[in-house]
Amino acid sequence: MARKAGRHFLQIPGPSAVPDRILHAIARQTIDHRGPDFAAVGQTALEGMKTIFKTEAGHVFIYPASGTGAWEAALVNTVKEGDRVLMYETGHFATLWNKMASKLGVEAEFIEGDWRGGADPDAIEARLRADTNHEIKAVCVVHNETSTGSVSPIAQVRAAIDAAKHPALLMVDSISGLASVDFRFDEWGVDVCVSGSQKGLMLPPGISFNAVSDKAMAVARTGGMRRSYWDWNDMVGPNATGYFPYTPGTNMLYGLNEAIAMLHEEGLDAVFARHARHGAATRAAVRGWGLEVLCAQQGQESGVLTAVLMPEGHSADGFRKTVLEQSDISLGNGLSKVADKVFRIGHLGDFNDAMLLATLTGVERGLTRAGVPHQKGGLDAAIEVLDTVDASALKAAE
Amino acid sequence: MARKAGRHFLQIPGPSAVPDRILHAIARQTIDHRGPDFAAVGQTALEGMKTIFKTEAGHVFIYPASGTGAWEAALVNTVKEGDRVLMYETGHFATLWNKMASKLGVEAEFIEGDWRGGADPDAIEARLRADTNHEIKAVCVVHNETSTGSVSPIAQVRAAIDAAKHPALLMVDSISGLASVDFRFDEWGVDVCVSGSQKGLMLPPGISFNAVSDKAMAVARTGGMRRSYWDWNDMVGPNATGYFPYTPGTNMLYGLNEAIAMLHEEGLDAVFARHARHGAATRAAVRGWGLEVLCAQQGQESGVLTAVLMPEGHSADGFRKTVLEQSDISLGNGLSKVADKVFRIGHLGDFNDAMLLATLTGVERGLTRAGVPHQKGGLDAAIEVLDTVDASALKAAE
Amino acid sequence: MARKAGRHFLQIPGPSAVPDRILHAIARQTIDHRGPDFAAVGQTALEGMKTIFKTEAGHVFIYPASGTGAWEAALVNTVKEGDRVLMYETGHFATLWNKMASKLGVEAEFIEGDWRGGADPDAIEARLRADTNHEIKAVCVVHNETSTGSVSPIAQVRAAIDAAKHPALLMVDSISGLASVDFRFDEWGVDVCVSGSQKGLMLPPGISFNAVSDKAMAVARTGGMRRSYWDWNDMVGPNATGYFPYTPGTNMLYGLNEAIAMLHEEGLDAVFARHARHGAATRAAVRGWGLEVLCAQQGQESGVLTAVLMPEGHSADGFRKTVLEQSDISLGNGLSKVADKVFRIGHLGDFNDAMLLATLTGVERGLTRAGVPHQKGGLDAAIEVLDTVDASALKAAE
Amino acid sequence: MARKAGRHFLQIPGPSAVPDRILHAIARQTIDHRGPDFAAVGQTALEGMKTIFKTEAGHVFIYPASGTGAWEAALVNTVKEGDRVLMYETGHFATLWNKMASKLGVEAEFIEGDWRGGADPDAIEARLRADTNHEIKAVCVVHNETSTGSVSPIAQVRAAIDAAKHPALLMVDSISGLASVDFRFDEWGVDVCVSGSQKGLMLPPGISFNAVSDKAMAVARTGGMRRSYWDWNDMVGPNATGYFPYTPGTNMLYGLNEAIAMLHEEGLDAVFARHARHGAATRAAVRGWGLEVLCAQQGQESGVLTAVLMPEGHSADGFRKTVLEQSDISLGNGLSKVADKVFRIGHLGDFNDAMLLATLTGVERGLTRAGVPHQKGGLDAAIEVLDTVDASALKAAE
Repeated sequence: MARKAGRHFLQIPGPSAVPDRILHAIARQTIDHRGPDFAAVGQTALEGMKTIFKTEAGHVFIYPASGTGAWEAALVNTVKEGDRVLMYETGHFATLWNKMASKLGVEAEFIEGDWRGGADPDAIEARLRADTNHEIKAVCVVHNETSTGSVSPIAQVRAAIDAAKHPALLMVDSISGLASVDFRFDEWGVDVCVSGSQKGLMLPPGISFNAVSDKAMAVARTGGMRRSYWDWNDMVGPNATGYFPYTPGTNMLYGLNEAIAMLHEEGLDAVFARHARHGAATRAAVRGWGLEVLCAQQGQESGVLTAVLMPEGHSADGFRKTVLEQSDISLGNGLSKVADKVFRIGHLGDFNDAMLLATLTGVERGLTRAGVPHQKGGLDAAIEVLDTVDASALKAAE
Repeated sequence: MARKAGRHFLQIPGPSAVPDRILHAIARQTIDHRGPDFAAVGQTALEGMKTIFKTEAGHVFIYPASGTGAWEAALVNTVKEGDRVLMYETGHFATLWNKMASKLGVEAEFIEGDWRGGADPDAIEARLRADTNHEIKAVCVVHNETSTGSVSPIAQVRAAIDAAKHPALLMVDSISGLASVDFRFDEWGVDVCVSGSQKGLMLPPGISFNAVSDKAMAVARTGGMRRSYWDWNDMVGPNATGYFPYTPGTNMLYGLNEAIAMLHEEGLDAVFARHARHGAATRAAVRGWGLEVLCAQQGQESGVLTAVLMPEGHSADGFRKTVLEQSDISLGNGLSKVADKVFRIGHLGDFNDAMLLATLTGVERGLTRAGVPHQKGGLDAAIEVLDTVDASALKAAE
Repeated sequence: MARKAGRHFLQIPGPSAVPDRILHAIARQTIDHRGPDFAAVGQTALEGMKTIFKTEAGHVFIYPASGTGAWEAALVNTVKEGDRVLMYETGHFATLWNKMASKLGVEAEFIEGDWRGGADPDAIEARLRADTNHEIKAVCVVHNETSTGSVSPIAQVRAAIDAAKHPALLMVDSISGLASVDFRFDEWGVDVCVSGSQKGLMLPPGISFNAVSDKAMAVARTGGMRRSYWDWNDMVGPNATGYFPYTPGTNMLYGLNEAIAMLHEEGLDAVFARHARHGAATRAAVRGWGLEVLCAQQGQESGVLTAVLMPEGHSADGFRKTVLEQSDISLGNGLSKVADKVFRIGHLGDFNDAMLLATLTGVERGLTRAGVPHQKGGLDAAIEVLDTVDASALKAAE
Repeated sequence: MARKAGRHFLQIPGPSAVPDRILHAIARQTIDHRGPDFAAVGQTALEGMKTIFKTEAGHVFIYPASGTGAWEAALVNTVKEGDRVLMYETGHFATLWNKMASKLGVEAEFIEGDWRGGADPDAIEARLRADTNHEIKAVCVVHNETSTGSVSPIAQVRAAIDAAKHPALLMVDSISGLASVDFRFDEWGVDVCVSGSQKGLMLPPGISFNAVSDKAMAVARTGGMRRSYWDWNDMVGPNATGYFPYTPGTNMLYGLNEAIAMLHEEGLDAVFARHARHGAATRAAVRGWGLEVLCAQQGQESGVLTAVLMPEGHSADGFRKTVLEQSDISLGNGLSKVADKVFRIGHLGDFNDAMLLATLTGVERGLTRAGVPHQKGGLDAAIEVLDTVDASALKAAE
């Protein structure tokens, strides 16, 4: 096959394109993870991740595993077979986590959702109030649902649990939200947060995270399932001096430390504002084309990705293939319930205006070639948002 | 701290120093692990690993996890809580695997060993013959014991199981043996082999492997423990086309494919001969210094590493510190039972004569500085082995 | 200063953005340029460059120097102080080459041009016919004038020389044309071609080239100026076996060999067609905005870059600054005569549709912010060209 | 050809093995060398090189060229055709520089030397005293003669010129000395120093340097030969703000800035002490083997390399081939007068004890295999030097 010139645009909602600084960091020579030089690598990573999770009180655990492993870790450290957990169907990834819980033997209740918004705190509160025996051991919510582009209001979920005076742990999947959308572990009273490397952290996949409250640590001390690889209890000791109970993903940790530094160089608030602004511009484009954004809850639209509903009778996957061939841009596919009905535009990670405009122009071109009915004007609408938000931001900075 | 000039010598028995070709491969841009270009990456890795395990009939599974995870995967797919497995105490890593099995609820019998040789097939056969009810579901043996530098005779263990007419699975940890010491999955009748990336495969840590026989797959289909991340059954389908059920370690797979290519460019037999030759030279050095090699079983000494007993009254860890400071060479430490009594010289991975001689010269210098009683002559003995073996190899090649 | 997220768009007409494959090649360990392994590196580069220059009969010389050095090499090997050469003022770089010739003591005649097209073969022929004594030793023409975006018709210049029956050498600067715009050393009867690394060859700057005909070699054997570093005669011998008379830029040669491979993987004709198509789309955008392309000669517009005239009273450099700040896109500046009156859009090297559309969108946004009077519609016009050319190309391929 | 495992030992006296930090720096994306971000790159390099040359008053010029180009630059900026310069035959590179001067039309006097020591200040003084008309415009001396491993006493050469009350410029080639052997541009009264990247600066070849005194700048302002690429006068203006008159080797400058940082992290004095110590150990080894060091002037032996005389009747090149094949160690060859009679051991750049001992062990092994008569004991003698010097250094540091 002939070589394709130019840079591929990886506009799926993760993995996001890895910046050169991180690729170079990962390419540094591996060192002895038991040797004296490793301590600084480990401590920088563990302490640095606390600043990303915004926790001082919590513990951070880093697994050589992808996000699915960190999901499992969250469950097996806190609940046991037969325990009940309450989950909320925000979309495909909430469903996968729910299935995993069931597969592990947990009674995993699932509050149905329509995949068009974040978790509903009222529904959670109602269910918890009804659980007078406190059989529910944990409430599990996806922060940024990667399959739909909706963000759950985590602080309100916490408020709902508190209002119901329910002792359940609050466990949050922020695999695709962390470091792109604001997340506040301590302030929001999260007990376990699950995250991964290949989204806002701008790394390749391969390491994943649990942030854990003291309350959850106490549960894990005596509870949870039989476990070994995922056991928090084994991590605490070695982590205290920057080491790990078994071989860590050393080179990924090099990259992680670079990523944390880069995020702070830009400033976390600037990172979140950038993602929000790109999300707003993308939604303006979608609406300018006369298409529909999957997330229907105002205020819950994600800055990480935008899922777009295809007009009836048009294949989202066919469209994605067109865009890939025509413009060398990868878009995300619709998953399970919305397979072939939705395509997803990732605008996360190491990203800027020009990359977004390239992406949206590629989408607009693809709509034409694929014969998808749409209006012109999406791109102009996006630019208007970028210019407006930009201008006001400049004003604010004066 | 002032910069130290020159290249560090990472002469621990893994991670081994990663060659530049592999570091560059890992630094390639991450792609969509659901996209069309990924299939070739996944298939090359999965098929390539079969040639490394020397299996045609078996399945290979690749985990984004370090070797400890692949240990867990081998157990949870094949045995359940309360099942009995027979393990052999070759050293520290056999012990850790044994403890993991117990922690997971398995009745993990442990045949005691003196840490100075590989597993004893006779002892295994005797125990299996006594197990007339076939309560033992698996025999678990470490191929190359990283803590001692001894190699277990896997083919004879297989023969022992067969001689006992016992249906137990044969599960082998070749985390540090694979791609350094000959391993033949099909020919030796192994059912599950566990391996990792950061030893003979010359990669950083972060991915690990199970090779699995049809017999073990059949067990896993209905048996094993509740599991999710490690479940072979979920892997089979996506793997068939080069994909994975959850996010794989894409960049590590780039590196793996480069590693497999490099191993075949050198030739697996040449790789094994090189390791064996460096092991022989190292043992000659140790004996030349008047010191003792930990492995006391002739024919079971490892080509991957050589563990050396310190003379009574001398601290191995103090000695290692001396060598690190004096020569910027990292040696492996003694683990648990042999802590501070043993140091380990890694001679595995991307390694050659000059690197070995640098290492042995550094050790000899360190013995002097640390005041460890020894004779001169170790280095000369090593060189003599290198030259002799080299010469005969040249002769053989004529 | 806060970190800027995302990838910078280096849309100047060179250096062009270097693809990762080439950056990785350059980062390989340096080897002994006198050792046995080097020969293959040198020969691959020297032979490979012949395929890029499209010469079988010619010699290729590679200098560790930037393009300015290769200009000097072309002159000092062929003409001596007081010799007359005929040059053509296509723009800034032709002017710089002319100044260099004068500085070196050459009588460097300069046919005036308006910077809005390539060299005029008729004017050259007329001047040569008038040179009945054959005082003119060489005709020097810039193939792709980087300051204006015009391409000189080299084959016609050759025809003009032949028509005038003039023995002057034909020396061509294709620093920014080679590997982007078709160039045929042998077929077009070029005697010396000068080129560089950081344009169509997609490398960083640092090495440069002369391709030399036998006729020019014969001149150099006894003629030219006193010289050492640039002397072709010293190169021939070592080059024959892949070596160089003095230390070459080894790591840049690694990159060069990768670049040559990439160009052939895409296919040189495909590379030229891609550049031509992107040039056509860019000009359509410029005209769609109601702006003027600097190159006024139809058929001589470059596929490498497009220079755009700013409306009277607007600063091109102010506009470029706006685009850089607003969209992190670097555009090229106007040089000398057209300083601040022109900006240049580079669309060369490792480049694709999405990158072009990002660039043009960034320009359109910048025109608005900078208050430059323009019409909407530039981007749409560009897309139409891309789609049309694309469609017909697809048709042709059927 | 089968892949060779392990790291190649590039023990020639340059290029020296490039450390990973520098390779990674070179692999960073190229930027616009006329754009705003470049100024910091250029200024850091230009200012940083002043600290390496140890000059505050002098100018530093950086050429995209290898060291041979910087030689030419030194000459063409300061002397013209027919001018007389006085050079000293320290070895092959002094001879090459001498030939270059002649080739450029300079009357290049050459004080004969025996290639076994540095330049003789007395001979220089005597010649200058005889030059009562001050026809000699420059005294040209090689600081560290790469072909022989001898260091010229530059301060004494300066003293000799002063003693003769002669106005000639002092021009020094420290291509292989700079950043390995102490060099003090201002203190020693050097007028022009020529250097390169691929030795003590640990970079690949491709950029080179002139450091220039005000006195030499004044000469260049009106004197020197016709020149363009090498002209200091054109450099001064752009350099003042971090830019260059023509395209610089941007990626090499990235590497240079990393190299300068690394040298200062180690400390220049520590760098010089390290080279001196490795030189002393190497000479001890050579003498321990009963072989002869080419440099016969005590106190002038180089810390960069050691040239070793082969016993009569033995081919140095055959021996080097043996070492390369046997131990994958590249040694330097004997050049011109000492071709095949001498081999050279490079111990420069990013280098440490273990690498030296690997090299010396490889040499000792090679002597045996090649049948070169020698005594055992070289390696032990080297270790004794390392331990002694090391111990005293430790003492001094207390």
